[in-house]
Amino acid sequence: MLADPQSLEDFRQLLKAAPGPDGVALQGARDRNGQLTKPPGALGRLEDLAIWYAGWRGDPRPRIEAPQVIVFAGNHGVTAQGVSAFPAEVTVQMVANFKAGGAAINQLARVAGARMDVHALELDRPVADFTQGPAMSEAEALGAIRVGWQAVDPKADLLVVGEMGIGNTTSAAAIAHALYGGEASDWVGRGTGVDDAGLVNKTRVVAEGVARHARDGVDGIGILARLGGREIAAMAGAIAAARMLRIPVILDGFICTAAAACLEATHAGALDHTVAGHLSAEGAHVRLLEKLGKAPLLSLGLRLGEGSGAALAINVVKAATACHSGMATFAEAGVADG
Amino acid sequence: MLADPQSLEDFRQLLKAAPGPDGVALQGARDRNGQLTKPPGALGRLEDLAIWYAGWRGDPRPRIEAPQVIVFAGNHGVTAQGVSAFPAEVTVQMVANFKAGGAAINQLARVAGARMDVHALELDRPVADFTQGPAMSEAEALGAIRVGWQAVDPKADLLVVGEMGIGNTTSAAAIAHALYGGEASDWVGRGTGVDDAGLVNKTRVVAEGVARHARDGVDGIGILARLGGREIAAMAGAIAAARMLRIPVILDGFICTAAAACLEATHAGALDHTVAGHLSAEGAHVRLLEKLGKAPLLSLGLRLGEGSGAALAINVVKAATACHSGMATFAEAGVADG
Repeated sequence: MLADPQSLEDFRQLLKAAPGPDGVALQGARDRNGQLTKPPGALGRLEDLAIWYAGWRGDPRPRIEAPQVIVFAGNHGVTAQGVSAFPAEVTVQMVANFKAGGAAINQLARVAGARMDVHALELDRPVADFTQGPAMSEAEALGAIRVGWQAVDPKADLLVVGEMGIGNTTSAAAIAHALYGGEASDWVGRGTGVDDAGLVNKTRVVAEGVARHARDGVDGIGILARLGGREIAAMAGAIAAARMLRIPVILDGFICTAAAACLEATHAGALDHTVAGHLSAEGAHVRLLEKLGKAPLLSLGLRLGEGSGAALAINVVKAATACHSGMATFAEAGVADG
Repeated sequence: MLADPQSLEDFRQLLKAAPGPDGVALQGARDRNGQLTKPPGALGRLEDLAIWYAGWRGDPRPRIEAPQVIVFAGNHGVTAQGVSAFPAEVTVQMVANFKAGGAAINQLARVAGARMDVHALELDRPVADFTQGPAMSEAEALGAIRVGWQAVDPKADLLVVGEMGIGNTTSAAAIAHALYGGEASDWVGRGTGVDDAGLVNKTRVVAEGVARHARDGVDGIGILARLGGREIAAMAGAIAAARMLRIPVILDGFICTAAAACLEATHAGALDHTVAGHLSAEGAHVRLLEKLGKAPLLSLGLRLGEGSGAALAINVVKAATACHSGMATFAEAGVADG
């Protein structure tokens, strides 16, 4: 059983003490890859993915049999500033849709053969409007991180975390701007579809929030609490817990990546067990991935959240390990090695 | 039962008479897409894919339940010119590996839930070296096209065709150069891994073949016979048969796309029921896809053939139709439509 973080400071310490990949499994996987019945490098990124996965699982010939998709939902006080094309009630309506199996992520999890869990975090109590004060107190942020931390199935062998929360691209943009600087407009996009005036307003809101909260000495976890939301903190908690459990993680789009970036900003290397599942059509996602040095597996123009792009990438990672672990070697197959 | 083409001329006529998508199903799918519980366009290319698939299947709410992967293998006389990093015996060895389940495509077909068939086409009788004469007679080309034509399961609902054939990137490069002009070097790559001197030699071979065979009045089918191989002709036959059966096709890499291009060159629109599964690392593939106006679904650096990139894309098309057909509408889910 994974012990819960007891405070935000404890969470920071856990990030720093987290395990790395297994060197023996990594080397074993590299050796095996060189013997498989294909020209060297012919499976492209699938080869690197399989070796990366093997290292984190500590198994030179792993299989993926129990992927987990977790969708976290939260509400945002900043919606009072008119930052979304959809009303805040949609969060609770979509949670009902997730539970009934009617959302995109339900279909995508099924195609990926993944278990799916939904955690709605106090939807009737939105986090505070960050233009007025911190989105969350330390206790609120810790509580949300712990929901994510506990939501990870220790038996899962691949994790996707997704989110639903009207207003949360605004929160994610504020986090990214606070972590990486530049102009607020570098990080603000149309989310579910605000118009030009909405975009100007959203940019103002992000700039105000960052000006208020991103002071010297506030680290990634501090940014997460002040500008995030419960579902964003829960995603960060789940990604960190997966590291402790040696469960590789596929990052989703802009909001998930902003949650993850708070971990990386707190402790460099905290995302080494993660891969970028896709490039979102939300414009600032490409910038965020560049900051993290992650190349997305897919680029299909999705901008839905829910974990959808990452869930779509589960089968790519599955395919990579299936080839790696299931293919015959040149010697086994009696094929001449060019 | 689909009637076989009786001659290459009959095959040309069948291409011209082939059915188009179902307009009613297309419109029904577009309407449905607009009502699903997501912001408009938020599933990106998955939305277009699902509508395209629905049109070809004649069903506004289709499911994919029976994908088929067919691997065709053939040998090439042009290997006598030293164009490959692997010896020609590898073709027959790899066919044994496909049949034993040890190749990459076996694992990828399994992850995609696809049936897999292997057709080895007279491996002990390579097609002629095209620098010396036509690779195939009309009768040989027709025979290979018919193998592909008959290999398609009429009950399949999605098709991938792949290939194995030492020397066949040389054949594919010659086809592309013959169809689209430019310089031979525009179309020649390293295949399974020839060195710099090998690349120069391969370029010479392609230039000689095209100079000898690509005369005025030789159309795509003529090019296919003169510069192709049995596995390439079989892929073309299978792609054309799938059109008659309203089975959408995912194109694989350079060699598969060259086979397909012979159909498009013979009759514009002959590939409307196909989508490009991936962008191969074989350099000229991007050029070939541009000529066909096809944007690849995946770009993961694969350059293996066997149908591997297209098989990897099966789950993307599956995911697209699963979302399209499985998601709730705003009305069904009681979600406010922004």
